[in-house]
Amino acid sequence: MDDRRFDRLVTLRRDLHRRPEPAWREFYTTSRIVDELERIGVDDLRLGPEILDADARMAVPDEDEIAEWHERAREAGAREDVLERTAGGFTGALATLERGDGPTVALRVDIDGLPITESDATTHVPADGGFRSGNEGYMHACGHDAHAAFGVGVLEAVAESEFEGTFHVLFQPAEEVIGGGRAVAESGVLDDVDRLLAVHVGLDHPTGEVVAGVSGFLAVRQFEVTFTGESAHAGASPGSGRDAVQALATAVQNMHAIRRHSDGATRVNTGVVEGGTATNIVPESARIEGEVRGETTHLKEYMSDRADTVVENAAAMHDCESRITTTAEAPSAESDDELADVVADVAAGVAGVDSILQRDDLGGSEDATYLMNRVQERGGLASYVGIGTDHPGGHHTPTFDVDERSLAIGVEVLAGAVGHCW
Amino acid sequence: MDDRRFDRLVTLRRDLHRRPEPAWREFYTTSRIVDELERIGVDDLRLGPEILDADARMAVPDEDEIAEWHERAREAGAREDVLERTAGGFTGALATLERGDGPTVALRVDIDGLPITESDATTHVPADGGFRSGNEGYMHACGHDAHAAFGVGVLEAVAESEFEGTFHVLFQPAEEVIGGGRAVAESGVLDDVDRLLAVHVGLDHPTGEVVAGVSGFLAVRQFEVTFTGESAHAGASPGSGRDAVQALATAVQNMHAIRRHSDGATRVNTGVVEGGTATNIVPESARIEGEVRGETTHLKEYMSDRADTVVENAAAMHDCESRITTTAEAPSAESDDELADVVADVAAGVAGVDSILQRDDLGGSEDATYLMNRVQERGGLASYVGIGTDHPGGHHTPTFDVDERSLAIGVEVLAGAVGHCW
Amino acid sequence: MDDRRFDRLVTLRRDLHRRPEPAWREFYTTSRIVDELERIGVDDLRLGPEILDADARMAVPDEDEIAEWHERAREAGAREDVLERTAGGFTGALATLERGDGPTVALRVDIDGLPITESDATTHVPADGGFRSGNEGYMHACGHDAHAAFGVGVLEAVAESEFEGTFHVLFQPAEEVIGGGRAVAESGVLDDVDRLLAVHVGLDHPTGEVVAGVSGFLAVRQFEVTFTGESAHAGASPGSGRDAVQALATAVQNMHAIRRHSDGATRVNTGVVEGGTATNIVPESARIEGEVRGETTHLKEYMSDRADTVVENAAAMHDCESRITTTAEAPSAESDDELADVVADVAAGVAGVDSILQRDDLGGSEDATYLMNRVQERGGLASYVGIGTDHPGGHHTPTFDVDERSLAIGVEVLAGAVGHCW
Amino acid sequence: MDDRRFDRLVTLRRDLHRRPEPAWREFYTTSRIVDELERIGVDDLRLGPEILDADARMAVPDEDEIAEWHERAREAGAREDVLERTAGGFTGALATLERGDGPTVALRVDIDGLPITESDATTHVPADGGFRSGNEGYMHACGHDAHAAFGVGVLEAVAESEFEGTFHVLFQPAEEVIGGGRAVAESGVLDDVDRLLAVHVGLDHPTGEVVAGVSGFLAVRQFEVTFTGESAHAGASPGSGRDAVQALATAVQNMHAIRRHSDGATRVNTGVVEGGTATNIVPESARIEGEVRGETTHLKEYMSDRADTVVENAAAMHDCESRITTTAEAPSAESDDELADVVADVAAGVAGVDSILQRDDLGGSEDATYLMNRVQERGGLASYVGIGTDHPGGHHTPTFDVDERSLAIGVEVLAGAVGHCW
Repeated sequence: MDDRRFDRLVTLRRDLHRRPEPAWREFYTTSRIVDELERIGVDDLRLGPEILDADARMAVPDEDEIAEWHERAREAGAREDVLERTAGGFTGALATLERGDGPTVALRVDIDGLPITESDATTHVPADGGFRSGNEGYMHACGHDAHAAFGVGVLEAVAESEFEGTFHVLFQPAEEVIGGGRAVAESGVLDDVDRLLAVHVGLDHPTGEVVAGVSGFLAVRQFEVTFTGESAHAGASPGSGRDAVQALATAVQNMHAIRRHSDGATRVNTGVVEGGTATNIVPESARIEGEVRGETTHLKEYMSDRADTVVENAAAMHDCESRITTTAEAPSAESDDELADVVADVAAGVAGVDSILQRDDLGGSEDATYLMNRVQERGGLASYVGIGTDHPGGHHTPTFDVDERSLAIGVEVLAGAVGHCW
Repeated sequence: MDDRRFDRLVTLRRDLHRRPEPAWREFYTTSRIVDELERIGVDDLRLGPEILDADARMAVPDEDEIAEWHERAREAGAREDVLERTAGGFTGALATLERGDGPTVALRVDIDGLPITESDATTHVPADGGFRSGNEGYMHACGHDAHAAFGVGVLEAVAESEFEGTFHVLFQPAEEVIGGGRAVAESGVLDDVDRLLAVHVGLDHPTGEVVAGVSGFLAVRQFEVTFTGESAHAGASPGSGRDAVQALATAVQNMHAIRRHSDGATRVNTGVVEGGTATNIVPESARIEGEVRGETTHLKEYMSDRADTVVENAAAMHDCESRITTTAEAPSAESDDELADVVADVAAGVAGVDSILQRDDLGGSEDATYLMNRVQERGGLASYVGIGTDHPGGHHTPTFDVDERSLAIGVEVLAGAVGHCW
Repeated sequence: MDDRRFDRLVTLRRDLHRRPEPAWREFYTTSRIVDELERIGVDDLRLGPEILDADARMAVPDEDEIAEWHERAREAGAREDVLERTAGGFTGALATLERGDGPTVALRVDIDGLPITESDATTHVPADGGFRSGNEGYMHACGHDAHAAFGVGVLEAVAESEFEGTFHVLFQPAEEVIGGGRAVAESGVLDDVDRLLAVHVGLDHPTGEVVAGVSGFLAVRQFEVTFTGESAHAGASPGSGRDAVQALATAVQNMHAIRRHSDGATRVNTGVVEGGTATNIVPESARIEGEVRGETTHLKEYMSDRADTVVENAAAMHDCESRITTTAEAPSAESDDELADVVADVAAGVAGVDSILQRDDLGGSEDATYLMNRVQERGGLASYVGIGTDHPGGHHTPTFDVDERSLAIGVEVLAGAVGHCW
Repeated sequence: MDDRRFDRLVTLRRDLHRRPEPAWREFYTTSRIVDELERIGVDDLRLGPEILDADARMAVPDEDEIAEWHERAREAGAREDVLERTAGGFTGALATLERGDGPTVALRVDIDGLPITESDATTHVPADGGFRSGNEGYMHACGHDAHAAFGVGVLEAVAESEFEGTFHVLFQPAEEVIGGGRAVAESGVLDDVDRLLAVHVGLDHPTGEVVAGVSGFLAVRQFEVTFTGESAHAGASPGSGRDAVQALATAVQNMHAIRRHSDGATRVNTGVVEGGTATNIVPESARIEGEVRGETTHLKEYMSDRADTVVENAAAMHDCESRITTTAEAPSAESDDELADVVADVAAGVAGVDSILQRDDLGGSEDATYLMNRVQERGGLASYVGIGTDHPGGHHTPTFDVDERSLAIGVEVLAGAVGHCW
């Protein structure tokens, strides 16, 4: 990659890093990406409302919250036309090159930031280099700024190549809340795709290492539980109360005690709990934000069914009502060997790549799985590619950062794989 | 009381002490009592089947168990006629004196022993005196041997007195399992009673102290819970099991966590638990023997309803079935002041009585409450009388014993009260 | 009571009702009371810093919070001299009449409001009458506005009477958080008191009913528990987390399961719980605001010790650290019959009183018990007097209100009792 | 295999099937095996005391229990010399062929039965065929009767072959309680082994299928927990009891709630629980028989440490004492590919084999892992071979049975592999 192009990727990545936007609020980010796409020139450019099934969006924040970030993006200089087209949280973009007959290939990158306060230590490169987050309390702590740069870089490389066929780059919103993947999948815009590549930087792999096909995605369901009882004075009439916090405690204990399953790994977490209003009042309401996962979608269903049963009976046991609502969900998925082999072959010829792993397990969840499953169910192939990067802090920590050398490596591996996808 | 009569009471009490029989198996005991009643001469003598509503008996052991004690009593010298009339566990007796017009007065004593192994320490009077339990593993550890002696002694005293009216002595079986009181009450044999006295020795009161009217009986429900799940190999297929022991544990924790009630004292106990068959098998079945109590019958119902709910939902939470069956039950009751005053007045004139309490709380449960409630509901009065006795060990312990001086005191207080009951 | 005086009491009570101030922030309230005391004329007037042991104050909010209410009181027209003397949350007052030789008698009233939003229904008298709370979110929902009026009214009546001796009226801050009583007691300002009266309106007694001696105060300990574990990604490394929410759930379940006690009533509540930060993160921290109570101080200690043990082991079981800190505490107390008899005798002669109860149980907690115990330990007598009032909503609800006719009744009963306290 | 030899194996297997003996009580079984070994002729024959490290035996029943089965074996016709040498539960045998220079190869089979009552349905072949268990309540429900026949058959085949080297057959006692493997390993008798084969029939593989190298053994720890509290009358003094059943319930709930681990599969089971003595007594003691497992020995340790912590704190939380003792334990193990390949090669040429799996996971635990680890640590190779058999009921069920055609297959595969082990 020539220096000018590399510098442009670095500039883009740093600009996005400076303005991280959380799920469904990537207004500035989308605007900035549109700038680059127009510079490169694409045959078709669709924004949020055109690529999202509105009813399939998950974990969407409330309107006020969305409006506040919309305005913030305007103040940061986002384009009015993009702001208008993405209003209400319909963020993200799908850029398409039409290059005659040939396969339809797609690259999926995600673009949202996290609600984490970025480190201001001088040892933290973005802080020292002047591109630390300006949206205090939010941060690109998972590398989606680099992912957006990958998308732009690969599009530009393919545009300038001999590629024949159709090439899409999906800039997907709301991955961190597992909220956007399903909405894109169900919109059908990728239904004609023969080969789908998704990509992630880091994942504990150093710069120079490439994972050709990541698997081990845990299917996940995130949910919110509310318990409703009846308050009473804890001293004067404890027996007439119906205690939502007792229901909560019973549910927490018994959700963790859901039996392990011999078919594979399962997970359960009660990540946020709260309940009650005063020390001396029997708590009337309580809530849990939790999740279950499974190595397979089936195992996730096992855990999910058991969690429903626990919640229902923990409430009834304490004479309370309960409601459990799914806030986000994603299936598991597998990378196809055939496509991963292509990636591995290409990577072997890319400068800076010194280690190639055929397979690795993610051990977490990702809503790219909706897209992978959709493509695979319709006969296409999919692979989730890992581009190693030296990252000082772990993913989702205040000192996470990407080694920018991996921007070039990622673009070349992915563009090369696109070029060989037929 | 003259010496001869006192010696006879001591002899009787020691004979019974030597042959404690548990609930619904008081065959020898009933036979021995019948001997005494015939010696004294009564106008009517009814045995178990005639004074028990068969369907209202609770906590009845299985037939083999009853048959074994029936045979054991035969070997100990019980009368064949009594054995025949009490076969099947219809033990106990009601002796009646008909002395012309006048009130109907009744004294209720209970006669069963406990499944406790008696101390063989030389400091334990029955061991040293040669009348320790010969039914190893069983013991008169609550003084019902003395109660039977009270019944015989009072009957004899009343028979020789000027008493006019009808006088019953009920020798009630199966108090320790709260199993006999209801069956007698529902048989109706005490429905014509105007004044009912029940009696207990000890209760932490020393020899010479009399409690004229005991109250504070806790209403009680004893129950058995069974949980049924499905076994599975705990290593190879844990997820396909339905774990009855997890249901049990959830139920135990949540039964104890039933909220206190401002209307008064409540109790809960999970006294016996068991479940499962092997270390490496997901347990298919489990059971609890437990109880709830309340200061009032209403509070007992509160606890009972909550316990039902806990059991049902603890089972459902772990995908198990459950069944809860009531094994024994008794209401609360209050001694009537008017009758307690009579007892107090009489006690003041009895030799050896040096302290009279108008009231005291039992803090436990008793199925005499069925009889007290029955009499009170029909317009009669009832009082539960405590006759203090120095007891080295506590009730229900291996070193419990009664100070035999209290035999004379009890008979005189109770016979005196009967004489003044109109 | 003549109309002018009654109208003045009503005006005062309504003015205070319009400006409820929560615990340790009663700046306007103290200022308004000082106005009245100066009007009446007292021999000694001490404010917060002179009557509070600073170290013994409990449940004091943080400085910013106090400063905000201090400023709010200034804006409402509070006197600068009072604001200065009560700065930092040293609110409340002790007014003293020195009337020659004779006993030292004291009346204690409390003056703080509650964090409850007052009803604005037209059926709610204060809303309809234009004296609904102007401090939105706060309310005199327990009648302490009436209590302050009692204090002023009784002082005025005693000042105009023939009373010989010393008479104190304590306007105590911070009762609702059980925070002020101990600080006054430990300051020693009431150490010379021979007769102490405390008073409460309502308590489910109607206008015209007086309770001469309230008992049944539950000793209470309120506490805050924090659990600290270690966060981890719930999907990728659940086993390396140490889950503070599991510790919380175990503690909640087992605190409720602390065994009942035969010595009397106990209580436990986990009134507020919260923990964790995100659905997919093993929770690092969690907290409980809870309380235990007992019919006696001993029973409160029993519950308190058990709660400490539960917390410590629930934390250790889940490899977490825990800390439990007492935020408020109060002992139980008994009203003295001798003093209650005086109150009953006086009440019998007061116009409007149509029912007198010698005794009643509170069933809640109160920090007047610190003062009652202090006086009783030093040889004095104390009684807690209930002045019935028709209250449409229950105590601590948005529609609570006092029937102002009870203002006159309370003043006359209490002033009369003060006059007979020797 | 010729018919005569096959018939002899069937006769042996059926004879053992008729007399199943549980762990450490395989007296008749050992005697019967010795008969066969003497018939074949071996160069060395060592019995229990010579091949077991006495201190390393686990899960040994008490002396009376052992003595009872010793006597039972005598009555069944066991040889006096074998009974004498195996007295005290030192059962099992090691038979050795010394055939000149060459590798040392060993075959391990296990010989104990299970405490399961065998089906008497006519559809159950052993019942119909007259060789159903005569030791009522015990059964060869896991095929160890076939394993013993394998051991004898392979020894005979090798004895008659050209094999050069040393060949051991270990008839190991007490596998079902995971009690014997460690004792043999630590005795050192297999320390010189270059190639170790262990074998199991069935495992859900049909007759004709062979698994060359089984892996996926879960490391396991089985334990017994005792909780000791203090009894009290549940009605009269609940607060003075210390409830061992509450400790048990807390421990059960929290053991199941031990967090999943990302390193691999874990298991936990509380297979047997019991506690308390009477419905109305606060339980003084309680116990759990449970186990934890892990996909690796490290994961088993993780679970084991967490279980220890849960037990200790569940006890302390309820003011009880606890003790946890390990009753059995086994590590995980892996079959060596090199040796498994030999087995697969040989199997391909055996009549009746129609399917060969290179690998399969057990998903359970086995104490052969001690022996496999021992040999591997000293440089040898080990493989655990599965010989499919049609089994109507699952392992450890009353209708388990082996298809005797698999006796011939197993002997030929194993004898062939022994012959190629150099």
